[in-house]
Parts: sequence; C-alpha cells; structure tokens
Amino acid sequence: MTESFDAPTVIRTKRDGGVLSDEAIDWVIDAYTHGRVADAQMSALLMAIFLRGMTGAEITRWTAAMIDSGERLDFTNLRSMDGTRLALVDKHSTGGVGDKITIPLVPVIMACGGAVPQAAGRGLGHTGGTLDKLESIPGFTGELTKAQIRQQLCDLGAAIFAAGELAPADRKIYALRDVTATTESLPLIASSIMSKKIAEGTRALVLDCKVGSGAFLATEAESRELARTMVDLGAEHGLTTRALLTDMEVPLGRTVGNAVEVAESLEVLEGGGPDDVVELTLALAREMLDAAGLDAIDPAQTLRDGTAMDRFRALVEAQGGDVAALRAEALPLGEHSETLTAPRGGTMGDIDAMAVGLAVWRLGAGRSMPGEQVQFGAGLRIHRRPGEPVAAGEPLFTLYSDTPQRFGAALAQLDGAWSVGDEAPVARPLIIDRIGM
Amino acid sequence: MTESFDAPTVIRTKRDGGVLSDEAIDWVIDAYTHGRVADAQMSALLMAIFLRGMTGAEITRWTAAMIDSGERLDFTNLRSMDGTRLALVDKHSTGGVGDKITIPLVPVIMACGGAVPQAAGRGLGHTGGTLDKLESIPGFTGELTKAQIRQQLCDLGAAIFAAGELAPADRKIYALRDVTATTESLPLIASSIMSKKIAEGTRALVLDCKVGSGAFLATEAESRELARTMVDLGAEHGLTTRALLTDMEVPLGRTVGNAVEVAESLEVLEGGGPDDVVELTLALAREMLDAAGLDAIDPAQTLRDGTAMDRFRALVEAQGGDVAALRAEALPLGEHSETLTAPRGGTMGDIDAMAVGLAVWRLGAGRSMPGEQVQFGAGLRIHRRPGEPVAAGEPLFTLYSDTPQRFGAALAQLDGAWSVGDEAPVARPLIIDRIGM
Repeated sequence: MTESFDAPTVIRTKRDGGVLSDEAIDWVIDAYTHGRVADAQMSALLMAIFLRGMTGAEITRWTAAMIDSGERLDFTNLRSMDGTRLALVDKHSTGGVGDKITIPLVPVIMACGGAVPQAAGRGLGHTGGTLDKLESIPGFTGELTKAQIRQQLCDLGAAIFAAGELAPADRKIYALRDVTATTESLPLIASSIMSKKIAEGTRALVLDCKVGSGAFLATEAESRELARTMVDLGAEHGLTTRALLTDMEVPLGRTVGNAVEVAESLEVLEGGGPDDVVELTLALAREMLDAAGLDAIDPAQTLRDGTAMDRFRALVEAQGGDVAALRAEALPLGEHSETLTAPRGGTMGDIDAMAVGLAVWRLGAGRSMPGEQVQFGAGLRIHRRPGEPVAAGEPLFTLYSDTPQRFGAALAQLDGAWSVGDEAPVARPLIIDRIGM
Repeated sequence: MTESFDAPTVIRTKRDGGVLSDEAIDWVIDAYTHGRVADAQMSALLMAIFLRGMTGAEITRWTAAMIDSGERLDFTNLRSMDGTRLALVDKHSTGGVGDKITIPLVPVIMACGGAVPQAAGRGLGHTGGTLDKLESIPGFTGELTKAQIRQQLCDLGAAIFAAGELAPADRKIYALRDVTATTESLPLIASSIMSKKIAEGTRALVLDCKVGSGAFLATEAESRELARTMVDLGAEHGLTTRALLTDMEVPLGRTVGNAVEVAESLEVLEGGGPDDVVELTLALAREMLDAAGLDAIDPAQTLRDGTAMDRFRALVEAQGGDVAALRAEALPLGEHSETLTAPRGGTMGDIDAMAVGLAVWRLGAGRSMPGEQVQFGAGLRIHRRPGEPVAAGEPLFTLYSDTPQRFGAALAQLDGAWSVGDEAPVARPLIIDRIGM
C-alpha cells in the first residue's frame, strides 16, 4: 500500500507551528490505530501538539478521526419498557479527586426516567476511575457486550461499561500520553473525552469541567476554554452539550479512593452524605434532565424517597455485583491504616486536591502502568473538611492500604498540603459557571 | 531496582522549559540505553528538547552520558611503523549533499603522516553516509574489530569503521530522531556528533559545519553556534577541536549518490575533480594537519604525486575492497537513467542542495528506515554547475536508479530547485569562517 503521508512530515508540520490538514489528521490517526505509525512517532507528535497547540478546526478533525477509528454506537431507536423512546443522556467529568459523583448521579437520572449509556474509564495518574471504584463491589463488572448495554438501557435506564472498542485510537493515545507527560493538553483532553462520549451513543451530555489544584489544566481560563471547546465538539456531532465549571481546589466529599468512595455514594443515595457531593450530584442531574427534555422531575426527591437507591441496586445486580455488599461494612477496606491528627486546635484550612490525589494513588488506589491491578480497599478519609473546627489531637485524615510500606510516600505527599489555623479559609462556590445553554 | 527518577517527570521538566539536572540526564540516558525508558518516552523528551532547547551545561552532560553509555577507544599509546606516536586526527561534517570529502581527505592525511580513526555513519534522511558510499566498492566493509582498527592505524594510518558499540545511546537516539522529526536540533546534533567523535579515540578534530539550504540548521547563526558548541565540547574532553563554516547552498561537486561520489573522489585523488571538492578537501586537510602538529607538509602535493591515491588503494584493500574496481567504469551505476535538459540557453543558476539531496534519497541512495539496503548505483550527475554556460537542449542532470518507478518522485523533488537564466548567480565563498583556533 502506498501511503499518502509519512509520519515525520506530519510531525514536522506541527513541530514548526503549522496547521495539520484534514487529510494528514485522518491519515495519522488511522495509521497509528493500525500500527503503521509507531508509538515513538505518535508521542513526538503529541509533544508537538502539547507545546504548539491546535486550531479549533484541527481539534474537530482529530476528534472525528478518533471516533471513526472504531464504531459509533446508536441507541436512538431503542424504547424503554413503557414504549417511549429512551431519553439518552450522559455526564463526564474532566477528572477530580474524590469525584464519585457518577455513582449517585446515574441512579438519580434512571429514577427520573433518563437513560445513561456511560462509557467509563479506569484511573491513570492522580484521579481515580469510575470503573475502578464500582469494581470494588464484589462481582461488579464493566465489561459488557453491546447486547447487554442495549438490554440494560431498555430495562433499567443505564449501563456503565468499559470504553473497550469505542474510539480505539483514543485508547492507544491515552495510554501513551500518561507515560510521556502529554496529558495536560487542551486539544488532547477535549478530543479524548469527546471521541468516547460521541461514540458511546448518548444524545445529550453534561460536562463537569474542574477548576483548581486538582484539575488537569492549571487555570480557570484554560478550563473555561476546554469546556467551550468540548461543548462545540458535542454540538458538531449532534449532541445537546453543556458544561458546568466546578471547584476542584479541595477534594470532593470526605473520601478519596475506591471502595471508600462507593460507601460515601451509598450515604448520598440514602439521603445523607457530604453537602458538596449532594450539591454537585443534584446540579449535574438538573442539567442532564434539562438537556434530555426531562426537566419536570425534582432529582432531590429520588434521594429522599429511595427510588435512586433502588435503581442503583438494580444496576449493580445487572452488572454482576453483590447487592448484599452495598453496605460500608461489607465493602473492602485496606488491611492497614495510618491516622494523621491535629497538631493544634483551630479551624481546618484548605486541603490541596492534587496532593490528596497523589497520596491516594501512592496508597495503591491508582495505577502507575496501564493494566495494573488497583487496591479496592486503598483510600483516604477526611475527618475534618475545610472550615470545620478542630481540637488538638483529633484525627484529620486516615489512610488505608493493603501494603503498609506505601504509607511513607503517601504521607510525604500530604506534607504541606493542609493546615489548621485560626481562621476559616475563604469559601468558594462549588459551581463556578454554566457554559453552553 | 528502585529508580531515582521516572521518565514522565524528566519529560515534564523539559516540556515546561526547565533545566535537566546532571543526575536526571545520567539516569535517562542510562535507562534508555538499557530499555527501562521506552522509545515513546525518549521521543517525547527529544521533541521537548527540540522545542525548548538545552543550556550549555545540559549539552555537556548529555554528551558525556552518551559517551559513558559505551566504550571510549584509546589509541594514544600506539606507534606507527617508524616508531613515532600516532598523530591522531579526524574530521566530521554536519552533513551535506554531494559531500564525499572524507573519501579523498583521509588518504591525503595518511600520505601526510596523520592517523585517522574515523567512526563513520550510514546515511539517513537527505544526506548520504560515508560508509554507504565506500561500501559501493565491491567487498569494502566498515565492520572492523578493534584489533583491526589498531592494526590499520599503525600500519596504514587510517581506519573507517561503523560506530557500532561506540556511544550506543546515541545510536538508539539517532535512529529515533530520524523517524520522529527531531533531527534538526542544535543540542541533539552537537551531542550526537561529539559523543561518537570523542569515543572513537581521536586526539584532534576538525569539523565541517554546513551553512545553507542543504544544512540541517536553517541559518548561518545557528550553524555558527553549533560549531562553537562542538568546539567547546571537544575541548572539554581533551580534543584539539576547530571548525570551518562552509557553504551548502548548492551540492558539492558534480555527483550526488553512492558509487558516483566514489568515482568523483577518484578523480580528485588523480589530481583532477571539481574545484570545490578539491578546495574543501585541501582546506580541511590543512586544518587537520595543523591540529595534529603536522603542518610542515603541503597536502596538495599528495594529490599531484599520487601518494594519496596509493594510500587510498591500501586502505580499500585492508578493508576488503576490490582495488580493481577503483575505476569509474567498474563501479555500480543504476540500471536506469533519466536526463533533464535545458529548456533554454543561458547561465546555470543556483541548484538547491536540499532538493537534490531529497531527489537522490528518493532514487534509492538513502534509507527511509534504519537498516534498509541502499542502492549503490543510485545517484545524480550535475552536468552544469551554477554559473556555467548552458545551451538550449543540453543535459543538465542525469538521474540513476535500479528502480525506474522512483524517477517520478525524484523529478518532482527537483521541480523548481534549479533555473537557467541570463545572469550568473551571485558567487559565494566556499569557506565562510574558521572557529576555534
């Protein structure tokens, strides 16, 4: 086969600050997916994109080429058990620390009549993956066939599944970015997220774009631009897309890890849980219901009346999980723990989200290599949230791991990442802005 | 084994414009040489270096780490047949089109009493490699053992050999740069050349730094900085090092390719040959003899009296080559040819060196993948050099290849790369400057 392009020429164009043609983008994504462009060549191109950026038109084409590298699922003709068309809607977060929102949110949407076809990721780097968290429920699997996904969408209103063969170009590129320090790039983040979300078959999408120390992009302006870029990409592919900009200076809720986050999600589904987790769950739920045309229903009601919890149990059961394990005491917890106590009394200051994310990653909750097994019981509990009163000697954080030799590195990561002082930290709104109405 | 660094952290430092520590450089070169850093990671780092640059201290350490990745040869205690210490001296060019200078130059130095331990390269990209050219002589091999190299230096005064195990880190990185468009980077060029030249065991070194369209760096200022950087690196490792800046706007001589360049070199060794090839050979010879402390001898004499040719024959014979093939008619020539003729009469204008280099590469004289077999007979003959009178219909270029389907791409490359006009092009000096006395 004669190639119309060659990798060095494509790389050179971007290296020198040029714009890649549609044809060059189509070629390089296809050739990389099929092994005719080497990992080394793609990673040089990714670094050039990282440092030179991409135009809107390039991001659009790159995303489309990644979608076209695999199958785009289509559920538009499916009907639910009552005969109505599915109100297909999904949510995606750009990645946060303690961000377990998907777990209570999906059942809320199910209870409100939506259908969520969620291609979910596994964690890599400092943020956890929804699938890793859910798979801490004994028996739960995200490896679903297309037939199972269809069946669950019709019968239950949701399926949470490994992206698998969707956007295979993205799967290869994502793994490469993690080991080559090319993760925190707006064009690469936007195209990666949107290629999977467009291919998964949802019709409406709400994005949770993080701002702050725990976010992948450094500034609010960049997060805002990322949100705008993704909203535009969704619209170009026929998805009703909008975004919330939300605070990620501090971790969400009181738990960070795998099973500990499921346990906290169960509290929310029982009508309790930390205020910020509930607030963000409901804000995203309202956006999703509105985007799906289901805005007559109050999502908060589904948490109070137990209908969301019922849907969560049904979803877990459908995906092989042990419903009897859906109690904090029955979920895995690291065999070993360490507790950090307050050196003085006062008020808990801000807690650095990135440091907590890295500490939990070091405890074994995340991966340093793709394919590595995570510890379901690894995690961290935050006993005092920013602004809460603290007495000297009270526990502030408890760390859990199956491997005690991991505590040293995790504790070092937390060093300087929190403080107890005389005054409460400045309060910030959790929801900063809405984009794309 | 616990690693003191990890590749993403090292890449991130350079990506963000930081300076790599000595320890980080030592670690990444060693880990890459031994396969603990992947090609994809090194190529992301190379692109970051390409776009962010390196400080002088970083280049120094990077070069030293590449030398230390293998053996540094040492011939300082060797003596020639007459009992005197070897006057070890070598030359290296940053890569030019039609640059066959090494072939007549080494025998000139031999005839003048120098000893040349030359680790030579194979071509990759638009410039040919000395070894590829010499191996077009039937039987000639650059694969010499260390014992053979020593023996030839003592008995004959030269050995031209594949760098092989010298600076193995450079060999891996060089192959990667070629396929990832990270070749034309000052720090990477300087460290690559100097690591091999320092490891090969020469004591004096003259660099031929090209300036112009056929050079790897775009501007004279960059070539000048490259020359200065390499002269300093040589001095830091105890080599007497100097550089000439020379013109590479147009190809050197009348031939570009493999065997055709050997044939032209034979003309020079017989006292003839194109003026520019002779001028550059003698200028570099004078610098080398001076650097080696052998400046009493006139190198031009060795071309006139046949002593350089005698040494060349002895060298070819020692390295397995068929001395009977050292005639233009006996050397390989592509089975097929195409000739471009003058569309009008007038004066030949400038000929773009880069375009000619790429055309000859497309004819099969070079490689598009490391390890590929080159065509010894592929090449190009320049019938009219810039400034020479041309009659309409006269041949300007003849292209040679064993594969006629290659002519299309090669001719396309030449399109717009030459002209015939009414006036002679502005003459430029071949030797632009000397650096590092």
